[in-house]
Amino acid sequence: MKLLQCYVDNIITTALMEDINYIDAAADNLIHADHRSSAYYVAKDTGVVCGIEVAKRVFDLAGGDVDFKILLQDGTKVNKGDIIAELEGSTLTLLKGERTALNLLQHMSGIATATNKCVELVKGTKAAVTDTRKTLPGLRALQKYAVTVGGGKNHRFNLSDAAMLKDNHIDAYGGITAAVNALREKIGHTVKIEVEVRTLDELREALDTKVEIIMLDNMSCDEMKEAVAIAGGRALLEASGNVTAENIRSVAETGVDIISLGALTHSVKCFDISMKIKK
Amino acid sequence: MKLLQCYVDNIITTALMEDINYIDAAADNLIHADHRSSAYYVAKDTGVVCGIEVAKRVFDLAGGDVDFKILLQDGTKVNKGDIIAELEGSTLTLLKGERTALNLLQHMSGIATATNKCVELVKGTKAAVTDTRKTLPGLRALQKYAVTVGGGKNHRFNLSDAAMLKDNHIDAYGGITAAVNALREKIGHTVKIEVEVRTLDELREALDTKVEIIMLDNMSCDEMKEAVAIAGGRALLEASGNVTAENIRSVAETGVDIISLGALTHSVKCFDISMKIKK
Amino acid sequence: MKLLQCYVDNIITTALMEDINYIDAAADNLIHADHRSSAYYVAKDTGVVCGIEVAKRVFDLAGGDVDFKILLQDGTKVNKGDIIAELEGSTLTLLKGERTALNLLQHMSGIATATNKCVELVKGTKAAVTDTRKTLPGLRALQKYAVTVGGGKNHRFNLSDAAMLKDNHIDAYGGITAAVNALREKIGHTVKIEVEVRTLDELREALDTKVEIIMLDNMSCDEMKEAVAIAGGRALLEASGNVTAENIRSVAETGVDIISLGALTHSVKCFDISMKIKK
Amino acid sequence: MKLLQCYVDNIITTALMEDINYIDAAADNLIHADHRSSAYYVAKDTGVVCGIEVAKRVFDLAGGDVDFKILLQDGTKVNKGDIIAELEGSTLTLLKGERTALNLLQHMSGIATATNKCVELVKGTKAAVTDTRKTLPGLRALQKYAVTVGGGKNHRFNLSDAAMLKDNHIDAYGGITAAVNALREKIGHTVKIEVEVRTLDELREALDTKVEIIMLDNMSCDEMKEAVAIAGGRALLEASGNVTAENIRSVAETGVDIISLGALTHSVKCFDISMKIKK
Amino acid sequence: MKLLQCYVDNIITTALMEDINYIDAAADNLIHADHRSSAYYVAKDTGVVCGIEVAKRVFDLAGGDVDFKILLQDGTKVNKGDIIAELEGSTLTLLKGERTALNLLQHMSGIATATNKCVELVKGTKAAVTDTRKTLPGLRALQKYAVTVGGGKNHRFNLSDAAMLKDNHIDAYGGITAAVNALREKIGHTVKIEVEVRTLDELREALDTKVEIIMLDNMSCDEMKEAVAIAGGRALLEASGNVTAENIRSVAETGVDIISLGALTHSVKCFDISMKIKK
Amino acid sequence: MKLLQCYVDNIITTALMEDINYIDAAADNLIHADHRSSAYYVAKDTGVVCGIEVAKRVFDLAGGDVDFKILLQDGTKVNKGDIIAELEGSTLTLLKGERTALNLLQHMSGIATATNKCVELVKGTKAAVTDTRKTLPGLRALQKYAVTVGGGKNHRFNLSDAAMLKDNHIDAYGGITAAVNALREKIGHTVKIEVEVRTLDELREALDTKVEIIMLDNMSCDEMKEAVAIAGGRALLEASGNVTAENIRSVAETGVDIISLGALTHSVKCFDISMKIKK
Repeated sequence: MKLLQCYVDNIITTALMEDINYIDAAADNLIHADHRSSAYYVAKDTGVVCGIEVAKRVFDLAGGDVDFKILLQDGTKVNKGDIIAELEGSTLTLLKGERTALNLLQHMSGIATATNKCVELVKGTKAAVTDTRKTLPGLRALQKYAVTVGGGKNHRFNLSDAAMLKDNHIDAYGGITAAVNALREKIGHTVKIEVEVRTLDELREALDTKVEIIMLDNMSCDEMKEAVAIAGGRALLEASGNVTAENIRSVAETGVDIISLGALTHSVKCFDISMKIKK
Repeated sequence: MKLLQCYVDNIITTALMEDINYIDAAADNLIHADHRSSAYYVAKDTGVVCGIEVAKRVFDLAGGDVDFKILLQDGTKVNKGDIIAELEGSTLTLLKGERTALNLLQHMSGIATATNKCVELVKGTKAAVTDTRKTLPGLRALQKYAVTVGGGKNHRFNLSDAAMLKDNHIDAYGGITAAVNALREKIGHTVKIEVEVRTLDELREALDTKVEIIMLDNMSCDEMKEAVAIAGGRALLEASGNVTAENIRSVAETGVDIISLGALTHSVKCFDISMKIKK
Repeated sequence: MKLLQCYVDNIITTALMEDINYIDAAADNLIHADHRSSAYYVAKDTGVVCGIEVAKRVFDLAGGDVDFKILLQDGTKVNKGDIIAELEGSTLTLLKGERTALNLLQHMSGIATATNKCVELVKGTKAAVTDTRKTLPGLRALQKYAVTVGGGKNHRFNLSDAAMLKDNHIDAYGGITAAVNALREKIGHTVKIEVEVRTLDELREALDTKVEIIMLDNMSCDEMKEAVAIAGGRALLEASGNVTAENIRSVAETGVDIISLGALTHSVKCFDISMKIKK
Repeated sequence: MKLLQCYVDNIITTALMEDINYIDAAADNLIHADHRSSAYYVAKDTGVVCGIEVAKRVFDLAGGDVDFKILLQDGTKVNKGDIIAELEGSTLTLLKGERTALNLLQHMSGIATATNKCVELVKGTKAAVTDTRKTLPGLRALQKYAVTVGGGKNHRFNLSDAAMLKDNHIDAYGGITAAVNALREKIGHTVKIEVEVRTLDELREALDTKVEIIMLDNMSCDEMKEAVAIAGGRALLEASGNVTAENIRSVAETGVDIISLGALTHSVKCFDISMKIKK
Repeated sequence: MKLLQCYVDNIITTALMEDINYIDAAADNLIHADHRSSAYYVAKDTGVVCGIEVAKRVFDLAGGDVDFKILLQDGTKVNKGDIIAELEGSTLTLLKGERTALNLLQHMSGIATATNKCVELVKGTKAAVTDTRKTLPGLRALQKYAVTVGGGKNHRFNLSDAAMLKDNHIDAYGGITAAVNALREKIGHTVKIEVEVRTLDELREALDTKVEIIMLDNMSCDEMKEAVAIAGGRALLEASGNVTAENIRSVAETGVDIISLGALTHSVKCFDISMKIKK
Repeated sequence: MKLLQCYVDNIITTALMEDINYIDAAADNLIHADHRSSAYYVAKDTGVVCGIEVAKRVFDLAGGDVDFKILLQDGTKVNKGDIIAELEGSTLTLLKGERTALNLLQHMSGIATATNKCVELVKGTKAAVTDTRKTLPGLRALQKYAVTVGGGKNHRFNLSDAAMLKDNHIDAYGGITAAVNALREKIGHTVKIEVEVRTLDELREALDTKVEIIMLDNMSCDEMKEAVAIAGGRALLEASGNVTAENIRSVAETGVDIISLGALTHSVKCFDISMKIKK
């Protein structure tokens, strides 16, 4: 899987212009244009690398005179001290690109690491771990890519590519059945419908409408187990709301198909990676 | 303090286009264009509101037919259940703008809340809490604004507006004194110089160069106390590295002037705010 | 259904800057800034209006001093001579926006009209008429919106929101079953899978994989009838390839669920609408 | 003649981001990054190739790892079965760029083909076939380039580079003579003036003003013949309105200098070219 | 004459983001959001006002809460002390927009003033004063507009809208006649041809080709007088090269039709206007 | 010192699209795509070269098939006749990039040359010559870079990176001391404060607040001498207002630290450089 280069380049360009409004006041004044250095990326913790191609690209756009050798590709699990990449080239470019590259790499690796932790926790169950639309402005594709690198799956990308029926939509039509029928009449054949339910009665009504996915909104594990039994495979069941590393295993063991976590992308703890310049 | 509208609008437009690639498959097909609803924003936790003007603007750009009444301005401390804003208008616009507005509001409030926690912890000391350049691509000004809303102060915005001398720069000139002198010759008179030191000897050398700021890199609290004594106010001292909510008070009590925390912006835990649509 | 304003504004701005590189050499030099005129849009043929809100918006962005009264909304069927909108305002703005507004309105109405013709032709069958990804650069959402205004439905918007398996993908995995299984393992739960088949044997294999949609590639009507019988509702069947106004009824009568036509968007005949300025 | 690369790149980037919002759900999940394929472009009809350099560039921007060998340059007349280009490279890039490249190539070749048909029809007369400002948003230069590739000539690019006087302008000044004189006073010396006339009397008045071009608006062929005689070469005469392949020869034989056709760019029938991937 | 709003807005937005990277460190921290002030623009010299609508727009985009009353429109000749506009509104917005508005207004007024000086100097002759393509990146339309406000006329806007034959083009075809003939065959009928000549012999050859404009490159006034006699009105004659305020009258008196000056836009002396905030 | 490539590329792309809206009407129609030429840049006056890397980059973006050999780097002092660069490559690209490259190079060299003249004039004094925020929209970094190439220093880049207290800010707080104290409380520790003073009493008050920089607004040389004596090095003193080449030496000899000149960037006289194509 490969992000579209022009999308990535837009993000990097924005970041570089934000960080180097004009010049690097220290490096541009002190370091000679011909000065070269070697550096490396080292993991400071245990986690999953993500964004190493993006980091590499930063130096192309920041100057183009750095040789960036990737040692560990996206998806690799690393431990403290593992060397992820080796860099050699213009010291000026290394210094100008350093922060932008790390900001991206650490953020993406943070997402992949957190996702992977959840994926490991549900191993052996049928539950897939997915993201949500709770992402940061302009970074959604980067963030969703990182979720897949961590072993998770992606929920819908945006409001266009799958239809989620919530209270408001349903109330406007006087019930789940009427709303789903009205929607099915109108949407394209490639768009799945997901309905959010809060009770087992709503679940039963939703199942009769043959929607593809049903979200069990903030249900207890006991309710979800019952929901799984009721559904009997007639629709995919998604657990959503208040899932954490602490309770994700219990949720997964209810037999739901999908567990979606907003925190994977809205509350990212960056993964610590350092760029060390060799003396 | 007010963010520049065209900067904010760029971010919102990007976010809306990312979230509504084409249409809202559910709402656009089910909700009548004339349908109107009322809604409100409610805090789900204790924290500091930030980004409410940004959230309001989202609905202008998503449709322009929503009346958004701000009840609690940026900087207000809220508790679970506090109503932050009331909205009334086109249901379609409310649904289309909902996620984008919350993603921004929750992120900014998360930063303000975390910053404020640190600021409270150091109260009574002379230490200011500041951010770093460890921000997310395209969001730096939003994030730095949120730090100030939380009571923190901003470190330099980018590589242009203050000069930070690290190992590499210093080595290239054979020492702190030579590097600072070379730099002072070249930079504009509005640019402060900060030097990163790792030992008290380096500190002493840096102090003699009359740089404005000295960063004490990963020093212990005992070392920092000694540093404060040595400096005697001749330069601002900044503590940096591995500062957390747990140890920030101890760090502040060493007498340093500034404590900078990358986590304020690189590892944001979003602050939970819900948009509830009234039935 | 309403297109996102910032998307529409981008298109209009690009078009205006393309058409008024600098000034309107005639109007800017001859027409006084205070001069006002009345005008109206009149249909020159029988068809379906589409894009009237977009046309209205052009004058906002071209000057902002035109009152544009929409008489016939998108989706209205019109005959030659029907008045679609009335305009009153600055003559300069009317002249500067005229061509850009008509170019958009005529293109969108052309798509809606052609789509509607197909939709009328298949009336009474179960077949839905859909577009494809054969659209013009930068205009996809406008074009897909016009298809729905004409009574058609939208196929997938892009490569991300539904997965279409063709020869190449299938060959890479040694067969339909293996490819579908591999894909189902990886894609998110909101993404439907469509498989392209060329023979009834391939159809049978595809049906066994439980994909949601099967495209019958360039099959004869007889083959498609047989395909419908074989499928028995186990998957949606899409007819694709060489469908025209002449044969669409026969295709629809085979019992397929979807008929997709690239020509709706790649070979648009603009619908003739004039803007007449009253003397 | 060569389009400006940054203009072309903007269009391609927009198109790619529209078509690959995030990933190619099928290819990115099924095709290995190292997999390579060969493919070729083949004409499915008789026409004129246009846009082959643009198509080639798509693969650079979609991945950069495809070798694209152009066999037939823009302007070449092709028949069904002619091989236009050969491609070899990353299967992923080939699949991701395929639709965007074809959408552009087929649209541009469609314009060149339709233009060429008109040019052939008027061969032997003095009439040049030109486009108009009836183009699609953002694509004007691509479309006008395609007209020249088909053997046509370009009318003015936009409202700035030539002045066209219509009813409104003329009425505002109380007649053709006054309007032309007023305009000549103001416009730059590089800008030609064209006047639209509806009667032979208007033509005579326009000729006396020494405008460079006179548009004969919706005149019959008989009127146009008379117009040509009256003008006696004192201005270029342009036939405009309701010209089709059926009547263009008769129009040309009236002796007019220019025949402009909006349909060349506002009602484009795409020219059928396939990309075949070799097994 | 009115510049296209979206063009102007782009320039202003760029300028504001450049000047207010983040916040106004002084005003945002010291001035209360509700604080209001009155201000005015006053001319500090004798000249021609230009760009006052642009300056007004700056405050809309910088905050939107300033009432900007234009007293003297573009084209007005002012003397030291004349009040050009009165402003009342948010002090914060006044301070944030001040520099950007003045930078634009002073630059545009500088161009109008310099142009007007030249126009006055040639009064009574037939010579028009025009600009060139020697403009500043991104500002061409603003600059060319300012030339017209100063009473000058515009030369071609860009390489597309008029054809200028220089040495290189002519040499490639073995002479003026061949080059002009080749070009006339290819360019659209709305595009004028200008030929650059260095000798009277070249002038004679150019006149025979019936080109619309002939540039007399760096000729002496005596040569130009002779050129005017030779041409006898068969083509427009343009004097170009080394024209200054000192010699422009002599050049104009040779009888040439156009005098083009690069300095009008490439070497602009800003016109001094102050914004005074009332106490 | 090196400008950020993506910033430079944006400016060049804008300039090229402005100058080549569509095609080069002359060159694209007359010069064969394979035609190659040699050319060189020659100084027409005495000055300082600046922007040669930018000029080189223009040809990359205009076509990419020109070999551009820089003979004299930025900062080199040249005399009339000095060859600055040699170019060899596609004639079409040379002609298309010519004007854009020269417009940038001449503007930047003009700034460097004027700055250098001032720097030479103050040689031997302690005064540094700096720019201001009086720059042209979108070109600030280019212009400020040129100032440093000419030997000057940069004043603050924008409103964010240093705080300048003027009348309005001071009045709002009832005096210099109160305003400075209020500001110091709020701004980040990397931001210097500059206060504008008009009298020696204000100077004394400002010195007591320990601001880093004090601007002496439009003071006479005698006043400034006194100011220098009063300050005794406690703050940097900046002379501002009405400084010209005529009086800059006297100003410098007062002992001020900085002399800022708006004219360096707001009233640029371009430096004359020609591109000559060899026959």
